[in-house]
Amino acid sequence: MKVRELGIKIGKLPVGRKNCITDVEGVRVGHVTLDFSIDDKGEYACTGVTAILPHGGNLFKEKVTAASYVINGFGKTTGLVQVNELGVIESPIMLTNTFGVPNVTQGTLEYMLEENPEIGISTGTINIVVGECNDSYLNSIRKCPVKPEHAIEAIRNASQDTAEEGAVGAGKGMICFGYKGGIGSSSRIVENGGLTYTVGCLVLSNFGESHEFRSEQYKVEKSQENATVKPTDGSIIMVLATDAPLSSHQLLRVIKRCGIGLARTGSHYSHGSGDIVIGFTTAHKIPHFTDNMVESRNQLREDHEVMNLLFTAAIEATEEAILNSLSQAVTTTGRNGHVVHAFKW
Amino acid sequence: MKVRELGIKIGKLPVGRKNCITDVEGVRVGHVTLDFSIDDKGEYACTGVTAILPHGGNLFKEKVTAASYVINGFGKTTGLVQVNELGVIESPIMLTNTFGVPNVTQGTLEYMLEENPEIGISTGTINIVVGECNDSYLNSIRKCPVKPEHAIEAIRNASQDTAEEGAVGAGKGMICFGYKGGIGSSSRIVENGGLTYTVGCLVLSNFGESHEFRSEQYKVEKSQENATVKPTDGSIIMVLATDAPLSSHQLLRVIKRCGIGLARTGSHYSHGSGDIVIGFTTAHKIPHFTDNMVESRNQLREDHEVMNLLFTAAIEATEEAILNSLSQAVTTTGRNGHVVHAFKW
Amino acid sequence: MKVRELGIKIGKLPVGRKNCITDVEGVRVGHVTLDFSIDDKGEYACTGVTAILPHGGNLFKEKVTAASYVINGFGKTTGLVQVNELGVIESPIMLTNTFGVPNVTQGTLEYMLEENPEIGISTGTINIVVGECNDSYLNSIRKCPVKPEHAIEAIRNASQDTAEEGAVGAGKGMICFGYKGGIGSSSRIVENGGLTYTVGCLVLSNFGESHEFRSEQYKVEKSQENATVKPTDGSIIMVLATDAPLSSHQLLRVIKRCGIGLARTGSHYSHGSGDIVIGFTTAHKIPHFTDNMVESRNQLREDHEVMNLLFTAAIEATEEAILNSLSQAVTTTGRNGHVVHAFKW
Amino acid sequence: MKVRELGIKIGKLPVGRKNCITDVEGVRVGHVTLDFSIDDKGEYACTGVTAILPHGGNLFKEKVTAASYVINGFGKTTGLVQVNELGVIESPIMLTNTFGVPNVTQGTLEYMLEENPEIGISTGTINIVVGECNDSYLNSIRKCPVKPEHAIEAIRNASQDTAEEGAVGAGKGMICFGYKGGIGSSSRIVENGGLTYTVGCLVLSNFGESHEFRSEQYKVEKSQENATVKPTDGSIIMVLATDAPLSSHQLLRVIKRCGIGLARTGSHYSHGSGDIVIGFTTAHKIPHFTDNMVESRNQLREDHEVMNLLFTAAIEATEEAILNSLSQAVTTTGRNGHVVHAFKW
Repeated sequence: MKVRELGIKIGKLPVGRKNCITDVEGVRVGHVTLDFSIDDKGEYACTGVTAILPHGGNLFKEKVTAASYVINGFGKTTGLVQVNELGVIESPIMLTNTFGVPNVTQGTLEYMLEENPEIGISTGTINIVVGECNDSYLNSIRKCPVKPEHAIEAIRNASQDTAEEGAVGAGKGMICFGYKGGIGSSSRIVENGGLTYTVGCLVLSNFGESHEFRSEQYKVEKSQENATVKPTDGSIIMVLATDAPLSSHQLLRVIKRCGIGLARTGSHYSHGSGDIVIGFTTAHKIPHFTDNMVESRNQLREDHEVMNLLFTAAIEATEEAILNSLSQAVTTTGRNGHVVHAFKW
Repeated sequence: MKVRELGIKIGKLPVGRKNCITDVEGVRVGHVTLDFSIDDKGEYACTGVTAILPHGGNLFKEKVTAASYVINGFGKTTGLVQVNELGVIESPIMLTNTFGVPNVTQGTLEYMLEENPEIGISTGTINIVVGECNDSYLNSIRKCPVKPEHAIEAIRNASQDTAEEGAVGAGKGMICFGYKGGIGSSSRIVENGGLTYTVGCLVLSNFGESHEFRSEQYKVEKSQENATVKPTDGSIIMVLATDAPLSSHQLLRVIKRCGIGLARTGSHYSHGSGDIVIGFTTAHKIPHFTDNMVESRNQLREDHEVMNLLFTAAIEATEEAILNSLSQAVTTTGRNGHVVHAFKW
Repeated sequence: MKVRELGIKIGKLPVGRKNCITDVEGVRVGHVTLDFSIDDKGEYACTGVTAILPHGGNLFKEKVTAASYVINGFGKTTGLVQVNELGVIESPIMLTNTFGVPNVTQGTLEYMLEENPEIGISTGTINIVVGECNDSYLNSIRKCPVKPEHAIEAIRNASQDTAEEGAVGAGKGMICFGYKGGIGSSSRIVENGGLTYTVGCLVLSNFGESHEFRSEQYKVEKSQENATVKPTDGSIIMVLATDAPLSSHQLLRVIKRCGIGLARTGSHYSHGSGDIVIGFTTAHKIPHFTDNMVESRNQLREDHEVMNLLFTAAIEATEEAILNSLSQAVTTTGRNGHVVHAFKW
Repeated sequence: MKVRELGIKIGKLPVGRKNCITDVEGVRVGHVTLDFSIDDKGEYACTGVTAILPHGGNLFKEKVTAASYVINGFGKTTGLVQVNELGVIESPIMLTNTFGVPNVTQGTLEYMLEENPEIGISTGTINIVVGECNDSYLNSIRKCPVKPEHAIEAIRNASQDTAEEGAVGAGKGMICFGYKGGIGSSSRIVENGGLTYTVGCLVLSNFGESHEFRSEQYKVEKSQENATVKPTDGSIIMVLATDAPLSSHQLLRVIKRCGIGLARTGSHYSHGSGDIVIGFTTAHKIPHFTDNMVESRNQLREDHEVMNLLFTAAIEATEEAILNSLSQAVTTTGRNGHVVHAFKW
């Protein structure tokens, strides 16, 4: 269940119809979940892949304005160098476990090459964005169970429905505040001066210790005895989508605020954490091939209330997405019989 | 031949014994070169992998202080997020073609997991650094001929000898200023106030158009008629090694100056270029496992002449390494019979 | 009264003896408060200057390791370019109103020139750091009532006592969440593995609207009717001091976490805000004049719990300092008879 | 004389009519030069102020898109925090000596307040940008001879004529490569695909030692015996203007290339240097007051040749502006009878 169904409301802005990143028109989410025993000595695949597609068309030929922000950089997310330079994303945004990154990059690359025969022949290359968290407590990460074909399958699974949450896709083996975490999503509607925009956030949560979770503000009691103590610090990848007309730099300003939502749940951006935000707006489709030398782009003025409302939407959607990753996750057993319990709401 | 043997001297500082990045004590370089026909329709593997090892020990267990600097970020280099946050490198630095990055990451990961059974079990994960350039004019980049095992082989090939240069390893299919480029290296010795340090640079050159090459300053005439006109902008990866005791931030200041060496050859850091520097110093080996909570590190004061000399060494070694990548490369035939000519000195 | 005396405890770490930035050994704070009518038409000086001295010696000759972090950059803080490049602070850190920056810089410069006859003659120049917030609701900011001599006086007033808080010094005319804000301070003690460090934070608070203040988590009810609605967004300057042995880059990692403390009080880092952190550690005094070319510096390893505890200390001290800026401030009347009420606890 | 009149041509692009930053339509430059004996003991005012106005209207009410880039940050330039956050400049860009910054900021502030009675009353504050170099060899910098009124006078002096160059305005006391430097300017015309844009650069040069000047590439011999050996490292401020429609992020990409022009003259971005670029485009005037919530902005696509040409224009104009700062400067006598010789071409 989403926390909102449990009576927990984060913030003041209205939520979208699905309370999901897919409330942003065109955005698609797909999962592949791996859940099988690798051998009889305890090695176990408890992991997966999640794909977020900014729109349903050809992502290379119609790019979206994008930005990334590294809150704490103990992480192996790939593709950010080019996102930062050019301010566009031209591939699905993929999530997986830390050592799944190369295979997921490879699979996504193969998918995009298949779709775009010009790449590497008559036009340049393509940049793939893959975020990750370390699920090694539940998943046999050294065995690299995620293969290139799982990335392709996750992309093919993508739909505009409400995304599945919790212990699913890349979230299968993740742990948040000592309880079962993983995928969570939420959305907000910003209405101001006759304009209406949607902001959606999807997180892959894998951070925090039980005592850090500020559950009291949600009027929830936690029993720390069934919490897992992970051997290492965790991470979180936050993907923020909107349809507001923003430049890459403006989008960067918006996604920086996701760290506020994260902070309010209890994170201290721990040393060993890869706390990373990737954002995009579907407001403009930027063609790869065009003869136009000058483009006209709509963008919001930043001095009106709407900008602060977008900031607030990013904060609220992130905080609620993290809570949803907890409330939607089920108790999960993985490598060496390790069990991570669902949080009891 | 190295340009110095051709009578071209860059700058004023003395060069190291091998005039190579391996003049920095402990540094190793290894190549794997792919050069074969993939089919009878013109598809051709004209590419490879180059590995730079900061030292000969276990790189995960004894990390080196590091920094990275993105001059222009139209590139797919991976691993920089963590280098920037923590200021260390804990794997070999790998170079390959753009679409070889996932497989090279995967192979390097497998190599490091093999060497470090604790990773993903009793300790955290590992960060792999892979730089790339686009060799699609000569190489069938869409066919992904570079496999994980080629990365492992390049690491195993690494030695402290003078590195092979030109159309070798990751440099096999690269083009610089319209002529055959690829791997080049050079080094400098800094002596000041009784201190002696070595600075070495290895580049993977794949940038520039023929008319941009400022060959006149080297008293070399170029005949533009045999130059290749690439369909897309190119890139350069510069790897800078030193044994000077520098903090990560100081090292960042040093490697930023590599862009000066690049600029002097004629580059304008073109829009489509991934111009990236990765630097490390072998002055401190930073243990992964230790009970020490406080470390004492030597570092240079920045207000003495030695810092400016290190800057100068980085500039000179970079410029000369680029020239060596040209002078050492041989005329190469690749995909669809494409030929890239060696520059005639 | 400090909020702790009101029964409000932020976080879990023990506080220092004075619960003030001056708990960090050697740190001094001084204020000059301006509070007078400029004319009979309503123009009023309701502003001031606050000086934070990292130690009691000659700050130019014995610099401290420092870092700065811009959370949101709608602000006019000066001196950060050099702090970012060199990682040191070599002057008092000064706080004032937005248009007081040039005069406070000038006064601080004159003070430092007086103390250091070598500057501009036999050695280079000096970098002055001045932070600011906009107090124009209460203060006739256009009249520039702050003069260079006020900066000098604030420096001379600096002492190691518990700093005065609230509507004092640079905080005289500031507004926080619609109530009277200004100067606030708090500290934390970090004990781990036999090591003990102090972290202190001093804020100049001038941000937020009444409805944003998350007072419910402090079990405090707010009556919004007596809150001020400012015409423009506000700012906050946070100064973090510690005696932990940290490199500039490590310190940057610590001060980034001050944004968490800020976020938890209710800020959304609003568009019009200059939310800036300046940090320093007194662990090493770095001599301006020395013949040493190599320095040995102690620094913490980042993979031990102590680093996460320092992060937590920064968060807790910042959040509590903001609350103290509110609880210590008194109702204040300024320009055009504008009144800003103290928050009723 | 400009170097072009001496037969030295930098690069390949055509120059503007005046070969000056004022070739960019609307841009104005004004100087105030101080040149007087302060006492009979050798103290001497050998300094000044230079103002660059992006256009002739009200700069606060009609802002311009802007960006800044710190190549090496040993400098005291002020105003960059807000330029980086918002991507606009809303004041004249002022240049002066290091210790003139506070007074120049104060004077510029007073000028802008006079012009804009709403500031600090019914609207927010204003951000002033001031760049600086250290002219203490010729100028009694400790005496702070630059006063607020000099800033106002420089703004009032601004005209669209060819800017005076050399030992004038802020350039009065500057030294470049051991010879008299100061103000220099140059421009380039970019024509591509039916579009025509102008790029202009104005520098305040104060860097480099005689032996570093790569004069041989200009076929000029230098006699090092009459060169000045400064006691400290120097700096350079580069101001780049264009009328090309660029976003702030695109402009940042263009101004980063100014460092190439600087590098080619011989600079190694020395440790003690404040090497800073400030850029703006006049393509859009951004109103301070407007009810529009969404703006439509033209901007160049970056994948066409025109972007690389703008990069090249920035490089060429910077290099030639630096040379002009040398060729236009006259031998100057200042503090304590110190003489700095003009370079003999």
